[in-house]
Amino acid sequence: MQKFWGKTISVSEAVELAVKTLKESIELEAVDIPIDRSIKMISSESIKCPIDLPPYNNSAVDGYAVRSVDTIGATQLNPVRLKVKCSVDTGDPLDKCGVLRDNEAVEVGTGAPLPDGADAVVMYEDSLRAGDYVEVFKQVAPFDNVNRAGDDFKAGEEVIGKGTQLTAFHIGLLASLGLRNVRVYRSLKAFVLPTGSELVEPGEQLQPGKKYSSTDYIVASLLREAGFIEVSKLSPAPDQVGEVREALLKGLEKADLAITIGGSSIGNRDVVYRIIDSEGLWIFRGVALRPGRTTSLGLINGKPVFALSGNPMAAWAGFTAIVKPSIYRLYYSSPPVEPSIVATVGERIVNVVGYRSYVRVVLSSDGLKHFVKPYMIHGSSYLSSAIRAHGYVVIPEEVEGYDVGEEVVVQLFTTRPLHVNQSH
Amino acid sequence: MQKFWGKTISVSEAVELAVKTLKESIELEAVDIPIDRSIKMISSESIKCPIDLPPYNNSAVDGYAVRSVDTIGATQLNPVRLKVKCSVDTGDPLDKCGVLRDNEAVEVGTGAPLPDGADAVVMYEDSLRAGDYVEVFKQVAPFDNVNRAGDDFKAGEEVIGKGTQLTAFHIGLLASLGLRNVRVYRSLKAFVLPTGSELVEPGEQLQPGKKYSSTDYIVASLLREAGFIEVSKLSPAPDQVGEVREALLKGLEKADLAITIGGSSIGNRDVVYRIIDSEGLWIFRGVALRPGRTTSLGLINGKPVFALSGNPMAAWAGFTAIVKPSIYRLYYSSPPVEPSIVATVGERIVNVVGYRSYVRVVLSSDGLKHFVKPYMIHGSSYLSSAIRAHGYVVIPEEVEGYDVGEEVVVQLFTTRPLHVNQSH
Repeated sequence: MQKFWGKTISVSEAVELAVKTLKESIELEAVDIPIDRSIKMISSESIKCPIDLPPYNNSAVDGYAVRSVDTIGATQLNPVRLKVKCSVDTGDPLDKCGVLRDNEAVEVGTGAPLPDGADAVVMYEDSLRAGDYVEVFKQVAPFDNVNRAGDDFKAGEEVIGKGTQLTAFHIGLLASLGLRNVRVYRSLKAFVLPTGSELVEPGEQLQPGKKYSSTDYIVASLLREAGFIEVSKLSPAPDQVGEVREALLKGLEKADLAITIGGSSIGNRDVVYRIIDSEGLWIFRGVALRPGRTTSLGLINGKPVFALSGNPMAAWAGFTAIVKPSIYRLYYSSPPVEPSIVATVGERIVNVVGYRSYVRVVLSSDGLKHFVKPYMIHGSSYLSSAIRAHGYVVIPEEVEGYDVGEEVVVQLFTTRPLHVNQSH
Repeated sequence: MQKFWGKTISVSEAVELAVKTLKESIELEAVDIPIDRSIKMISSESIKCPIDLPPYNNSAVDGYAVRSVDTIGATQLNPVRLKVKCSVDTGDPLDKCGVLRDNEAVEVGTGAPLPDGADAVVMYEDSLRAGDYVEVFKQVAPFDNVNRAGDDFKAGEEVIGKGTQLTAFHIGLLASLGLRNVRVYRSLKAFVLPTGSELVEPGEQLQPGKKYSSTDYIVASLLREAGFIEVSKLSPAPDQVGEVREALLKGLEKADLAITIGGSSIGNRDVVYRIIDSEGLWIFRGVALRPGRTTSLGLINGKPVFALSGNPMAAWAGFTAIVKPSIYRLYYSSPPVEPSIVATVGERIVNVVGYRSYVRVVLSSDGLKHFVKPYMIHGSSYLSSAIRAHGYVVIPEEVEGYDVGEEVVVQLFTTRPLHVNQSH
């Protein structure tokens, strides 16, 4: 029952091994889905613009399309007088007004196609309409107030790269290309299996010595936040090889990968360890990560099984440092940018050299700068450190710590509003 | 058809008016939902911890529970010898081993309840087991390696405030309290109505002079990203008062609010303007915002109708500066933190004083610092500015611009991986 981890590998090594394992075991078929259900999905191919966007020169404002040479020298005192031959709006045929000739103008709405012969638009604000004529008070240069064909995107140009996680803007772009569907990698299927005889599902009666299962809810929610993973969360399995093994094998029949919670160290009751040890294959056992050093990866029936700690913050660190980036790398994409700010160290933040540490921190502000200090509570594994701390600082393996006055990047807990104390 | 906006109000004033309007017109009933479907929903009540967490003192490590006084002076050379009377693990009854007496130890697993009489735990690493005895090589102080009852959260303490947008950590916390459901504000119901005779739904045939409707897809996707809004996106309505009016009235029967796209300026065809003008009520018409100055808010049948530009970037700015923060304020919550970084201005970023500007920017890096410059293309309204720019800088009304060398905060386009050029 003595705990022995031997030499653990670094976080970077663990991520590389995990990426390799995921790539070897998971086939990422491409599927077509409607664009308005594609947010956060990952494009499986490069998408090129089939046409110029905009498709033709059009007015960027409401006003008068003109030949810019006709407006040379126009001022408030010496306006140029042009004949308004016609008016055209967005949606009208491109040739509605024919060709614009010398000293003619065409009234245009924003987005209206520029008539042949016109090369600029005078804004209403710089003109005065009088019957069939318009006085222009300001000269315009060629293509002033004109959206030129292909200015936004040119035909043939790549607009969405393979492996792009789609945002609202990509969806708008796909719509503007007339695409109703987009080809993306199918959702990844993952399940979360909490293990531990002491665990009880929320809502059930709690017997003395038992506790509610909660780390599994955190990990399942973090997985779902990625937006391209179908997650099922299983009920807690007691620490018995038979039950955990059955749940794992059954789950893996339909899923791409499993994440077990708890039972990842080498105690008597660490059944996940024993199952992978006896009938699976270890990819790595433990990582130089604090918290989260028991984070491990094995293969069962050729499918990846990440083993995370039952401790909520160790599971979070293992997920954030290893599981999440590995999954993103599977799609040839980078992990998304998380909110971060730069802050000045107000109280030394310490590392154990050789480990990559995820230190929860609190921020304060003197009105000008942000200051950061470690969130110190007895028992750094507590969930309250994620609820009450503002974010976390990642300390690399070779760094002993950050001294007062140094500037560090603070990763903010995703999407949480930041209410920083004004008193330092 | 001359455009006249008169004096427009500031972004802050617009947000205040919008918050007031939303609060007066929308009733936010509370509903109970399962915790694992509650991510990003907003809690409608303050949630207090019903019990101490952890509920009892327990071991933070695998090792031996001891009376710390018994270990005074223990070293590698002069170990203290204790009798192991019993062993206890997490999930076992609290009183399994009875009371610990002088020079006794109890073997404990991580999370196991601390036996009465014990006040500290010696880690395996600092001990050697020999039969019924254990040698302790290191003295421990009271509560070393012990998670104390209530250290994480104390009974009665508020753990989730009213108006909190729930994260994975909150869900884990609710689970650890044994709660299967959580009371949140019901989803907000919104619909997006694109208007414009030139608009065609993606997938349909495009006639000359027509264009695909896309800004509505962007706004609907941005709304959905909030996580607590049920969004329906209607098909484009042509610029005819009758059709737009019918779509609006029908949509508002079931929705809390509408967002129209296009038709918000004062051209002949700006039918949204005319509908609100004739049978609605204006809350504000236009905002000192660039792009997005036509952003408006009206009431129809007592329900809020935001009118956004048909131009994708103007709609984005109106949404980001006004719609989104107003909706968040409705829930007594703050808008979420968006990813941002600090960068040095590499090329002057200009504002029109009196306007709050949302300037798309590109980042570069010399390996040490980030540099930022405006993303300049002819036609700043183009969607490519959101696809190719890294983020945006918000310039307040009173600032003329930012000069080379100044430091500015760059808001990153949410969740987009940042690949910054290393050449500046």
